[in-house]
Amino acid sequence: MTAPSYAAVDWGTTSFRLWLVGENGDVIGERRSGEGMTTAAKTGFSAILETHLAAVGAPAHLPVVVCGMAGARQAWVEAGYLDTPAPLSGIVGAAVTVPDDNRDIRILPGLAQRSQEHPDVMRGEETQLLGAAASLGNGNHIVCMPGTHSKWVRLTGGVVEGFSTFMTGELFDVISKHSILAQAMVDAGAFDGENTVFLDAVAHAGQNPAMGTNLLFTVRSGQLLHGLSPIDAKARLSGTLIGLEIAGALSSARPGSSVCLVASGPLAALYRSALQALQLEPTIIDADEAVRHGLAAAARTLWPA
Amino acid sequence: MTAPSYAAVDWGTTSFRLWLVGENGDVIGERRSGEGMTTAAKTGFSAILETHLAAVGAPAHLPVVVCGMAGARQAWVEAGYLDTPAPLSGIVGAAVTVPDDNRDIRILPGLAQRSQEHPDVMRGEETQLLGAAASLGNGNHIVCMPGTHSKWVRLTGGVVEGFSTFMTGELFDVISKHSILAQAMVDAGAFDGENTVFLDAVAHAGQNPAMGTNLLFTVRSGQLLHGLSPIDAKARLSGTLIGLEIAGALSSARPGSSVCLVASGPLAALYRSALQALQLEPTIIDADEAVRHGLAAAARTLWPA
Repeated sequence: MTAPSYAAVDWGTTSFRLWLVGENGDVIGERRSGEGMTTAAKTGFSAILETHLAAVGAPAHLPVVVCGMAGARQAWVEAGYLDTPAPLSGIVGAAVTVPDDNRDIRILPGLAQRSQEHPDVMRGEETQLLGAAASLGNGNHIVCMPGTHSKWVRLTGGVVEGFSTFMTGELFDVISKHSILAQAMVDAGAFDGENTVFLDAVAHAGQNPAMGTNLLFTVRSGQLLHGLSPIDAKARLSGTLIGLEIAGALSSARPGSSVCLVASGPLAALYRSALQALQLEPTIIDADEAVRHGLAAAARTLWPA
Repeated sequence: MTAPSYAAVDWGTTSFRLWLVGENGDVIGERRSGEGMTTAAKTGFSAILETHLAAVGAPAHLPVVVCGMAGARQAWVEAGYLDTPAPLSGIVGAAVTVPDDNRDIRILPGLAQRSQEHPDVMRGEETQLLGAAASLGNGNHIVCMPGTHSKWVRLTGGVVEGFSTFMTGELFDVISKHSILAQAMVDAGAFDGENTVFLDAVAHAGQNPAMGTNLLFTVRSGQLLHGLSPIDAKARLSGTLIGLEIAGALSSARPGSSVCLVASGPLAALYRSALQALQLEPTIIDADEAVRHGLAAAARTLWPA
């Protein structure tokens, strides 16, 4: 087996992922847990990291590169933000060093768009972008990174010109749990991107986003007047929110930009269907691979062989 | 004092209001409580009504006209829906009679728009419309009735052509309580329609509704990057949602329609400011008076003197 070269960590709000990477670049160990920033802020970042490093047999002085919420203001060590327009090549240079007697631990910064009208921030997605950029090449791209807070990034020749966060995933969560629409979705099972109610909702919201908060109500009125089933109610809520997100993102995109979707698993399939329903054919890059490639690119710069 | 002629009840989801009306049309007694449909479904509609009738000294055989959620499917007695396009004059004819040995109790129906693409329902607002219609006269009107589920009605010559529900009030509630934006609004006090962050948010959302779920996130990013205060964070959330509502409603209005706002109290002031921020100058009708006038119009038809 190849000797370990560094560990790479993607530390989100509610998730922790670590890869032990060998001198040849192969992943030789991996850990996943729910000990995200929320947990770590209570139990300690260093303790959680060392437990996982020990579990994969990492040597005592192995360096570690970290991206994500561990660098937020009230988290481990604040890693600040790189301001847009931001060349992806500038991310590593703005990494901060965690005070530690044994290891070289670096946390990558987030990106900030400090405009008064369109303030925006990201943490973690910049590292996915860094990893995805190699396969994208130059030219104008819009990169969709769906999730709790979906990010849409305008990328030109390796420079992040600007980006927009859409609260899609979180809105789905709070509306489906806490609003009157919850009644229409009791015990709803899973749906996928082939669901026609989902696709219709994407199209309606995408074509007429001004009606967004009305289209949401049709989940309820559709149940009352047309017997919309729980699973279709859930699909309509999801499709409406995703359609609104796509309409918004496209309204600020450069004409002729190619669309790239950085996502994994069911979310990747759902967004691909949604983009296709609005006549877009995205290039797809796996989000897990993208963040790992981004951390690897950072590690190569930080600790050249 | 004039003798009682009938009692009028506006029975909402979480509120109960009763007026005792004299033979000359004056209000001679009034009751307000939180015993809305949610409470009444447990403790009994008849018992709650009789308690309040007794409290205002209503005679044993006094007739009662009711609008609102008491007529919903799982409430007291289902009063169904009148389908759009619906003449307001047809509402009373579709009232249902509550089986009762002592009194003549009628519940007015709601309105339903049964289109597959734009299903919608209202209960209670149709009676406000009936009350407001006398002051509106003929012509094309769009009537805004803000609230938990705001209704925008397209009214032509006394006929409800169609209407749209926007989840504005409920979205404000669930997002401010349950999403990440709650952190930006801790201990926020009250704001009013003069707040410039509110007015700017109305304008931004009204002019670019496609960016709605992004504009919501600027409540959070504005706090992080620009130190947005809790009260301004709350104002931005409210202004964004109201701006989205107005943009949506106008997108389906007939050109040249006059805009009428049926609202009371702080909500009336807030929506007037928001409409003015988008260059609209509404006629304002008090919502409390409108529902009372609507119930009075129904009573005059049901029990002519």
